[in-house]
Amino acid sequence: MRDILPYETVTLDDADSALVIVDQTKLPNEVKMLRLHTQADIFNAIRSLQVRGAPAIGVAAGFGLYLAAKQSTACTFEQFAEELKTAKDYLAGARPTAVNLTWALDRMQSAAWQHKKLPVARIKAALHDECMAIYHEDIEMCRRIGEYGLSLLKNGDGILTHCNAGQLATSKYGTALSPIHLGRERGMCFQVYADETRPLLQGARLTAFELAADDVDVTVICDNMASQVMKNGWIQAVLVGCDRVAGNGDVCNKIGTSGVAILAKHYGIPFYVLGPTSTIDLSIASGADIPIEQRAPEEVTSLWYQKPMTPKGVKVYNPAFDVTDHPLVTAIITDRGIVRPPYAKNLPMICQSK
Amino acid sequence: MRDILPYETVTLDDADSALVIVDQTKLPNEVKMLRLHTQADIFNAIRSLQVRGAPAIGVAAGFGLYLAAKQSTACTFEQFAEELKTAKDYLAGARPTAVNLTWALDRMQSAAWQHKKLPVARIKAALHDECMAIYHEDIEMCRRIGEYGLSLLKNGDGILTHCNAGQLATSKYGTALSPIHLGRERGMCFQVYADETRPLLQGARLTAFELAADDVDVTVICDNMASQVMKNGWIQAVLVGCDRVAGNGDVCNKIGTSGVAILAKHYGIPFYVLGPTSTIDLSIASGADIPIEQRAPEEVTSLWYQKPMTPKGVKVYNPAFDVTDHPLVTAIITDRGIVRPPYAKNLPMICQSK
Repeated sequence: MRDILPYETVTLDDADSALVIVDQTKLPNEVKMLRLHTQADIFNAIRSLQVRGAPAIGVAAGFGLYLAAKQSTACTFEQFAEELKTAKDYLAGARPTAVNLTWALDRMQSAAWQHKKLPVARIKAALHDECMAIYHEDIEMCRRIGEYGLSLLKNGDGILTHCNAGQLATSKYGTALSPIHLGRERGMCFQVYADETRPLLQGARLTAFELAADDVDVTVICDNMASQVMKNGWIQAVLVGCDRVAGNGDVCNKIGTSGVAILAKHYGIPFYVLGPTSTIDLSIASGADIPIEQRAPEEVTSLWYQKPMTPKGVKVYNPAFDVTDHPLVTAIITDRGIVRPPYAKNLPMICQSK
Repeated sequence: MRDILPYETVTLDDADSALVIVDQTKLPNEVKMLRLHTQADIFNAIRSLQVRGAPAIGVAAGFGLYLAAKQSTACTFEQFAEELKTAKDYLAGARPTAVNLTWALDRMQSAAWQHKKLPVARIKAALHDECMAIYHEDIEMCRRIGEYGLSLLKNGDGILTHCNAGQLATSKYGTALSPIHLGRERGMCFQVYADETRPLLQGARLTAFELAADDVDVTVICDNMASQVMKNGWIQAVLVGCDRVAGNGDVCNKIGTSGVAILAKHYGIPFYVLGPTSTIDLSIASGADIPIEQRAPEEVTSLWYQKPMTPKGVKVYNPAFDVTDHPLVTAIITDRGIVRPPYAKNLPMICQSK
């Protein structure tokens, strides 16, 4: 693996004694690495979004629970298991709705119980293996998504992306941005346009940062400039991530994604959704069944904690996500391959494959 | 005319001794009325965007040149004309590219010369009539646009608008927002969604302010939420202004307009462009011939003078306008009537009409 970037999103230090993350609340103005030893430090880092993105949170939780285990002075499995459960429940409360957080913690606990017959020191070693496995599996999953995505791109392509589904949301590569990072490793060049992504500006703050750090030619635009950029002929593909994919191929992702998809269709540009197979939820028939989280008006009105930019008391509609209807999606690129329409037939097949 | 609003965009005071404007740089947090007596005050108000919008700037210039004339102590036409020309050239420099500014100043000067045989006091009276005529003609033009626009709307309609083509850009009513204000006068209610309009937030700051001041049900959204709002079925019509309309019906307007038009077409929502006949430029064949002004990256990166929200040195593309292709435009609503496709045939007809 290449290590030219000035940061890693989430990793263990060389002595396996600290969780090391780049503090994403300080980006893009400062690259501040945090070394977190205590459970309270790790809890706060997850809660305060110093580390964010579903896969990265899962990896951080795995590392965090391993550190709790390592710091245990218990001699019996019973006492060790109790301390582990206390730490697990504590960390799980940092972001109660983050599925990957509980998934990783459950997986770590299972690993401990699988080795309950062994001495505590050996269980600790097994937990080290498990958290490293979560970490490496995440990288491998992202690398595969990138590999499949890269097969659809040509050197020199112009790419538009929305929000941040990048390395900063995973251990490495990212999902939507994985083909770009992987292409860079192979000496390819892309012209990337990053929607700033109001209201929270993940594109301006995070995507622009991580692509610039990887020496990618990146240009920030306001969300409402995407149409003009496409009209200029500068975009050959749109790459976006996904929070959830319904059984019919409808895609739930950051607010604004559906608008980008409609523009791409209008201008005849392929619109690719990238994400792990685990985001495909066959239990959901269509996007209409996905509830849309509504967030605080102040995110829109106060422009990052300045004085209000809107009249006092004005109404604000602030959905965090939207649903992109499946006819707008050219292909869904997963770690197991590229899925094309008809999605209702092809998504179950990719989920059953290995 | 109704006067329930807490401000007028641009007017003369009762004693005809001061130009009175609402300071738009203070909106929406403060409604500060400015009484401007001197040429320097008026120059600075235009230059610093305390008064903005092509029609409003024209009216302010007319009032401003009248005040200069009124303050003159000249006894002969020659001396009076020379002072007038000095004031005219001075005011014209406040926003050198604003066509309406020089148009109004030229018109005032012509009025003076038409009455050159009369005593200076009578010429001053003629100039008063002329600036009031510019003011009232602007209101009448906007009212007519509103009347035609209103004929396409139903009470209770949901309306989406972009940027501010409202009362704050004219003497009264506005262009795109004129049907809404006019409808309010008649007791009609609309649910209006105002795109915040990055980077300069004219929608969040100005449109939301003037609609709330007129007791209109207005909701601010980030630009990238328009697709979801349309998908929710909340929008029955899109109303936008225009900076220039080409002979084939292509529309140059605030950046982001073309994206809204594409979304409206996708969702089957009529997309109406509203503006005076004077914005139709038959000398321009299509939108491809309209140059797009590029503006400073800091407008995008610094979010209203806070610390940068993007990585240092990152590239930014920041066009002030975009071109909406004519097949996306349902109708162009002017002060002389509603123009529908084929625009290449019907726009010249409306320009020739009275």
